Amino acid sequence: MPENYVVEKTRTFESGIRLESGRLLAPITLSYETYGSLNASKSNAILVEHAWTGDAHLAGKHNEYETKPGWWDAIVGPGCLLDTDRYFVVCSNVIGSCFGSTGPASINPKTGKRYNLSFPVITIRDMVRAQKLLVDSLGVDKLLTVMGGSMGGMQALEWATQYPDSIASAVVLATTPRPSPQAISLNAVARWAIFNDPTWRKGEYKHNPKDGLALARGIGHITFLSDESMNAKFGRRFSAKDGKFDFFGQFEVERYLNYNGYNFVDRFDANSFLYLAKSLDIYDVAWGYESMSEAFSLVKAPIQFYAFSSDWLYPAYQTEEMVMCLKTLDKEVEYHLLTSAYGHDAFLLEHETFTPMVRDFLERVKKL
Amino acid sequence: MPENYVVEKTRTFESGIRLESGRLLAPITLSYETYGSLNASKSNAILVEHAWTGDAHLAGKHNEYETKPGWWDAIVGPGCLLDTDRYFVVCSNVIGSCFGSTGPASINPKTGKRYNLSFPVITIRDMVRAQKLLVDSLGVDKLLTVMGGSMGGMQALEWATQYPDSIASAVVLATTPRPSPQAISLNAVARWAIFNDPTWRKGEYKHNPKDGLALARGIGHITFLSDESMNAKFGRRFSAKDGKFDFFGQFEVERYLNYNGYNFVDRFDANSFLYLAKSLDIYDVAWGYESMSEAFSLVKAPIQFYAFSSDWLYPAYQTEEMVMCLKTLDKEVEYHLLTSAYGHDAFLLEHETFTPMVRDFLERVKKL
Repeated sequence: MPENYVVEKTRTFESGIRLESGRLLAPITLSYETYGSLNASKSNAILVEHAWTGDAHLAGKHNEYETKPGWWDAIVGPGCLLDTDRYFVVCSNVIGSCFGSTGPASINPKTGKRYNLSFPVITIRDMVRAQKLLVDSLGVDKLLTVMGGSMGGMQALEWATQYPDSIASAVVLATTPRPSPQAISLNAVARWAIFNDPTWRKGEYKHNPKDGLALARGIGHITFLSDESMNAKFGRRFSAKDGKFDFFGQFEVERYLNYNGYNFVDRFDANSFLYLAKSLDIYDVAWGYESMSEAFSLVKAPIQFYAFSSDWLYPAYQTEEMVMCLKTLDKEVEYHLLTSAYGHDAFLLEHETFTPMVRDFLERVKKL
Repeated sequence: MPENYVVEKTRTFESGIRLESGRLLAPITLSYETYGSLNASKSNAILVEHAWTGDAHLAGKHNEYETKPGWWDAIVGPGCLLDTDRYFVVCSNVIGSCFGSTGPASINPKTGKRYNLSFPVITIRDMVRAQKLLVDSLGVDKLLTVMGGSMGGMQALEWATQYPDSIASAVVLATTPRPSPQAISLNAVARWAIFNDPTWRKGEYKHNPKDGLALARGIGHITFLSDESMNAKFGRRFSAKDGKFDFFGQFEVERYLNYNGYNFVDRFDANSFLYLAKSLDIYDVAWGYESMSEAFSLVKAPIQFYAFSSDWLYPAYQTEEMVMCLKTLDKEVEYHLLTSAYGHDAFLLEHETFTPMVRDFLERVKKL
């Protein structure tokens, strides 16, 4: 954990960006946080990319009242993997999200009203294009590394292919070159849950459509865990309050999904959830190229990949496809398949397993 | 396919049954179909058990207007695996369902109104207890075999443990001794989708709550398929009608779930869906015993098990646990793990793979 309270900052780019869809999104505001200091040679900057429902609050606390530190606090701070005594760590909230960056809940300056569904569909590439403006504005020409898991890993892949001269390395965890139809299906039913909520009103809600969004999040949680971790955490235990023969009686796992689903409603905008689900589903590292191979031929930086054995959302074979492709292209690539019971969430929960290897990788990259 | 049109019959048992919950369900009506004839020694009867949303219409057609034959038509008929020239094949719709058997949409004779949520929670064991009445009433003392996949396999397991003297064998496909928390979770979010539908009205609807039920069925379809079969069937193809950057644009797999979800609304009662989902989730072959081993110590008939490699709803390791347990108890058991890309649905789609082995098994059983 960083030693002092951290401050969330924002930066606005009036001219915005031209999106992959051809539409212009302007202005663009990004919220971000930084930890540590940029060195004189500007060679110690690390960009950390968050996942679907994450934010810029990577580590530390904003004030004494915050009960929990940032989402990847365990690896950021003096002496940690991302050592804030040595590195300048940056985390930015993506466009399309609802934590200070421009998204569907932002006011469209042209109308004075929330974008809602008039917000354009955005891609992971668009998110990175916006981040590039931020990184440039911080005076960083070349990031020492860009690191992320899940949707964060997709962003790291986009840096590697779209801005090959702007990164010295990338660390990609628990991600995929393009979600499988099974992963798309699970997002599809989550979207459907929100569409079904009559209070959603095609995005023109006053209050978050809570039942639909909670269910959508509940579906998400199933994909973040694994058969193994659910067995370990809940087994088939029935909720203590309920009888087995009560129609509304719940298993503990059911109660967990419910509880976490409804908690989510207080912190995440339903339209943002939908837009980011869409960004995930349409993600394809080869978008705009003939093949993954053509896209990866652009890569210059060494990439370190991690996959987790029980991750069934973005299974290891999908990471392995990328690793093979990069190897065939003679790119510098390192791959670790980590045994874990934690499913997709392992990248957030089991940092001890990969921390030493990422540390070594960063040391080697610094010597290049 | 049987050679003549088949007739759906019903039989009512006025005194009903005492349920596992302690409640009495009476009267009980079961709808059923039979194919072929019972022989003089009454030794050629085979009971086929249907899955979650199945019915008694196992094979053949009711009339010339029916576009599709019964759900397992491929294995029933003269010369087929379940050879109607040799066997007397019976299929009965389970209690709790909505195809002619007593379920939540039935009229409660005490009130003159539909049961809806006043219907008792029922177990797989209750379904089999009701079927036992039917089998007895048909004059069959001992079934040559009881066969089923998924929920049908659970019923076959209950015959094997609860009525060990009433079956000469069992064939159990794609099932589990008790669903894992992951399988429960997927039913839990399906239930939640129906609960969220304002037209469900705690079960007191005039018309099926279509959006919630369609979504619930969409979730189910994900679990019936596999990553592999979805890749083969849909890949990441986008619907021809939609643009990738349309907010409501759909992948083909998404459109498939939607289409099948809404089709389901016309043929299945939402409350039945909920009650049967509950029966599946609370199923445990060891219910009422100290252990699976104690339950299986009751088994007398040989059992043949099939699991399918890509079935992630009831994965092979769960069948293997039963096989190991029965072997340890020196019971006669045979196990086949079939390689298949079709996921849980493989038991319905790939009958060619197991037909010869089931045929051999039945021949051996007849000689016992």
